[in-house]
Amino acid sequence: MTSPTEFSLRDVIALLARTPRALDALLRGLPTVWTRRNEGPDSWSPYDIMGHMVLAEREDWIPRTRLILEHGDARPFAPFDRFTQMKEPQLKSLEQLLDEFASLRKESLATLKTLNLQPNDLARSGRHPSLGSVTLSQLLATWAVHDLSHLHQLSRVMSHQYREAVGPWSIYLGVLQCAGHSAQ
Amino acid sequence: MTSPTEFSLRDVIALLARTPRALDALLRGLPTVWTRRNEGPDSWSPYDIMGHMVLAEREDWIPRTRLILEHGDARPFAPFDRFTQMKEPQLKSLEQLLDEFASLRKESLATLKTLNLQPNDLARSGRHPSLGSVTLSQLLATWAVHDLSHLHQLSRVMSHQYREAVGPWSIYLGVLQCAGHSAQ
Repeated sequence: MTSPTEFSLRDVIALLARTPRALDALLRGLPTVWTRRNEGPDSWSPYDIMGHMVLAEREDWIPRTRLILEHGDARPFAPFDRFTQMKEPQLKSLEQLLDEFASLRKESLATLKTLNLQPNDLARSGRHPSLGSVTLSQLLATWAVHDLSHLHQLSRVMSHQYREAVGPWSIYLGVLQCAGHSAQ
Repeated sequence: MTSPTEFSLRDVIALLARTPRALDALLRGLPTVWTRRNEGPDSWSPYDIMGHMVLAEREDWIPRTRLILEHGDARPFAPFDRFTQMKEPQLKSLEQLLDEFASLRKESLATLKTLNLQPNDLARSGRHPSLGSVTLSQLLATWAVHDLSHLHQLSRVMSHQYREAVGPWSIYLGVLQCAGHSAQ
């Protein structure tokens, strides 16, 4: 049960198809104490995370997939700014971001289907501006784990708001021991 | 945005009401590579986590709430075995566990409503077998963060399966830097 799992396009799509509904079920209509608070300076609230998910969905996964298929490693990916959503005015409601994410994800998965990726496509390489050579299957695996990473971050950010409220139970709650890791 | 948040029964209920649907949206019908694998010996799969959520819902939150209201700190809580679900035969499907969790949570929230908790109830103390004196509001806050802690754990366990598949991106994915914390 512990050997690393091989990439499967079917398994990745199954996960990618479910994340928007899971985030929607968790966040829509939730009081702002859970959705608009962060973990302190320069950290993200669930609202910020959803803004990031929308941007990544639009600018990252499918554009990079196309670039690999069309140019291989001849042209590096455009760098993706993980902080764009923090620099823009927050004009949209959380519910609008959830809708937008669900709609963009649906489009992404429809595009992925039309690409009809074969094993030799999945093995093709692209060039990441800082990581260097990466394969299409690694990009698609990262897309899925990126969803999970932000679910992980979001549950930690929400838990943080009740760090004091749980009193002595805090030592038993794993999520409250998590200090956060990298830029997510 | 960073000061600790005061306990609010309304905010806790809003979260507790959403978790079952979020877990359902994420896990129902998902390939077993995501739901039945764990992080190695003595660790939990998402399936195991759902088994634990069902047990906690049945044996922990509402029974302890009643005990505080009826006996205050005169009688300690019955200890809750976090590993019961690992010792029992796994006869139920993941989908059955998701249904059972949703149905038990609905009952719990209905019970909570009938209890019509007032500020003086929330301030009442109970006795935890190892943590000592705790208040009802701390118990209810812990219930919410316990949901989030297992969402946090579950996204990490799922991500772990693709640790190799993401290739060089692993250094950017926060969830893959998370080593897990306490017994969750």
